[in-house]
Amino acid sequence: MEHIRLAIADGIATITLNRPDQLNAFTTTMEYELIDAYDRCDADDDVRAVVLTGAGRAFCAGADLSAGADTFAEWQDEHSGDDLRRDGGGRVVLRMFESRKPIVAAINGPAVGVGITMTLAADFRLAADDARIGFVFNRRGLIPESCSSWFLPKLVPLQRALDWIYSGRLVDAAEAHDAGLLYSLHPRESVLDEAYALARRITEHSAPVSVALSRQLVWRSLGSDHPMLAHRAESRGINLRGVGPDAREGIAAFLEKRAAVFPDRVSTDTPDLFGDDLPSPPVPPLNRQH
Amino acid sequence: MEHIRLAIADGIATITLNRPDQLNAFTTTMEYELIDAYDRCDADDDVRAVVLTGAGRAFCAGADLSAGADTFAEWQDEHSGDDLRRDGGGRVVLRMFESRKPIVAAINGPAVGVGITMTLAADFRLAADDARIGFVFNRRGLIPESCSSWFLPKLVPLQRALDWIYSGRLVDAAEAHDAGLLYSLHPRESVLDEAYALARRITEHSAPVSVALSRQLVWRSLGSDHPMLAHRAESRGINLRGVGPDAREGIAAFLEKRAAVFPDRVSTDTPDLFGDDLPSPPVPPLNRQH
Amino acid sequence: MEHIRLAIADGIATITLNRPDQLNAFTTTMEYELIDAYDRCDADDDVRAVVLTGAGRAFCAGADLSAGADTFAEWQDEHSGDDLRRDGGGRVVLRMFESRKPIVAAINGPAVGVGITMTLAADFRLAADDARIGFVFNRRGLIPESCSSWFLPKLVPLQRALDWIYSGRLVDAAEAHDAGLLYSLHPRESVLDEAYALARRITEHSAPVSVALSRQLVWRSLGSDHPMLAHRAESRGINLRGVGPDAREGIAAFLEKRAAVFPDRVSTDTPDLFGDDLPSPPVPPLNRQH
Repeated sequence: MEHIRLAIADGIATITLNRPDQLNAFTTTMEYELIDAYDRCDADDDVRAVVLTGAGRAFCAGADLSAGADTFAEWQDEHSGDDLRRDGGGRVVLRMFESRKPIVAAINGPAVGVGITMTLAADFRLAADDARIGFVFNRRGLIPESCSSWFLPKLVPLQRALDWIYSGRLVDAAEAHDAGLLYSLHPRESVLDEAYALARRITEHSAPVSVALSRQLVWRSLGSDHPMLAHRAESRGINLRGVGPDAREGIAAFLEKRAAVFPDRVSTDTPDLFGDDLPSPPVPPLNRQH
Repeated sequence: MEHIRLAIADGIATITLNRPDQLNAFTTTMEYELIDAYDRCDADDDVRAVVLTGAGRAFCAGADLSAGADTFAEWQDEHSGDDLRRDGGGRVVLRMFESRKPIVAAINGPAVGVGITMTLAADFRLAADDARIGFVFNRRGLIPESCSSWFLPKLVPLQRALDWIYSGRLVDAAEAHDAGLLYSLHPRESVLDEAYALARRITEHSAPVSVALSRQLVWRSLGSDHPMLAHRAESRGINLRGVGPDAREGIAAFLEKRAAVFPDRVSTDTPDLFGDDLPSPPVPPLNRQH
Repeated sequence: MEHIRLAIADGIATITLNRPDQLNAFTTTMEYELIDAYDRCDADDDVRAVVLTGAGRAFCAGADLSAGADTFAEWQDEHSGDDLRRDGGGRVVLRMFESRKPIVAAINGPAVGVGITMTLAADFRLAADDARIGFVFNRRGLIPESCSSWFLPKLVPLQRALDWIYSGRLVDAAEAHDAGLLYSLHPRESVLDEAYALARRITEHSAPVSVALSRQLVWRSLGSDHPMLAHRAESRGINLRGVGPDAREGIAAFLEKRAAVFPDRVSTDTPDLFGDDLPSPPVPPLNRQH
């Protein structure tokens, strides 16, 4: 990997944006490497959670503007060869949206532009108490990206989101925390350790396949029309999970007041509850009846 | 009724989960009885609001696990005979979603698993200040159910919902209140009375059919794509309600500074504003123009 | 204009509900004039933001009930000639939903019924600290309108929205601010100036076309099913905006540490990112993959 690092230890993968001399400015190379890293984390059953952070004093200063005014003219998608390019930050967050492992962003310093929007599909955002954040697109003649127009108003009050996006102003960590964007604030030197502690706490007693399915259920349901769609997916999941080895172990361990040892593996035992391949229980048509 | 009680007095129906020796653990019998109770409340014009509570010291300890590791293997849906079972908690909350009467959950003690998720389609959740709450599914090798993957992130901040669901940890009432899951906290012995007081306050000056339609409008709009869908339903409602007896009485009473006496009845005068049967005013196609 | 005033100065349009002797009660004339005013603001490149306020001591006392119990029977839509009328407040907020300019509501006094619901599609609501607010429909035998069943639960916690709508009670400014409905409170005499200050702050450093597109992206994404829809629209926008004059100027000004002077004009340079006319980059089908 050229612009990021990926390291796995003690059940946690650490993805580090790794262009410290450029304040980890986002590149097309970084885009493809991030997607590849999330793919690897999903495929590796030793990874229970992912922590995303930045090398050096910044988290990410935004898109690399070293090409100046030609930045976006030159930044064509040479990988796909298509005439129209997809938003690179959007590709990354859509990959995160599908992640089977919880993602904790450890925002160790300034996070600006795609530097903050790339974290909106993380499950948690911890930050240094002196980190500054900016949705600066409108000040550059650009627009919000990385699906931030969809994610941000689901994370902070709408009036706050509009203020930040319209004005493009820099927001300090205290305001971002107060608004709900940041889960917690910490001294800069301890943000990463706090992220590891959170990652462990949310996974240590849980069945990994259950966490993967929970993540899929919550994120997919976040924008969906009607609870019937969640009901269909959850019913599928109960039919599959309720009679499986993990549930038998989980219930037995609970009744025996001992720690559970879950046998199922994410890589092989995680169905797509929203896909077309699974049979459905007899759920009524949407909007008709309960 | 075998596993619940239903009592109606002073315009309020009280549904009591009634297996106190089993901490009101949820059963298929309870599932079908709850749906039946909500049906009865909707059909009875003497019921202005519904209060849901638990007998004894618990609200509901979750699914009945007395069959041990075989719980879900045995818990087939003998009522329907289908090969695949629908999630029972989901059937209950989808019935609540369609309720014509406001539902106030009086969480008098611990609410765990389906014990808390079955309340997420209630309009209000009041709780004892020592109640503990747990979305414990992932610790049992199961998954979130009762459409909680859809409802919970609409009630509490997403990062908080994910923490609770991933970890499966027990949450105390103060944290749940602070996050917005609980509307108010009370000493255990007064939760039920406070629920009655709230039920009266939100209905005493309002037309019952208006409350029924408001409930339908808000809950159906909660996940819907575009405000045009609300506009279509609301426009239907104004055409029907604006010229009806309730509005004539409501406006006259307001102008005469007296209490209104609304003649319309929920059982006979509540249209389905989202159904296919009503004519629509000439609303533009979705996403085209205002 | 008969029931409102429209004035433009210093880049800000002020729309004033102007029936002070009737506490600015809402009429069909006001409905059509408001839509016309928002049309004019969108077409006028001198308008960077819109401020909505009321003349005299009230913001808006709700629908004009001077026809008494016959109000809604008489209030047929003579403009369209249709048998069924569309909700007039809904027509106004759907027009606001599509606005290309940020809208700041300066709620200078009581806002009741359509008087408050007509502000829910504004980007910001500032209010006098003694303003009272009421979603009073259920007390009149009516129902929520102006798409408020869709908007309100996106602005305040669901349990709070249901309390206000079911009961129809008057809410003081402090409660409404605490719940998140109001962005900030001010002494009555300074609300309008504070609205102007906010309007300037959120637009002064931003490209007007970027603000228009940001507004479209956020409001349209607010109810949409899946982030892929935002990704499609944002990708379109980046292809169009990233290589345009505004982005070239914005990036150059940033690198040169000077204020940007954006050349693009809202009236001529604002594409419909959600429409059918623009080509799309090769976005995967919804719900299939990232």
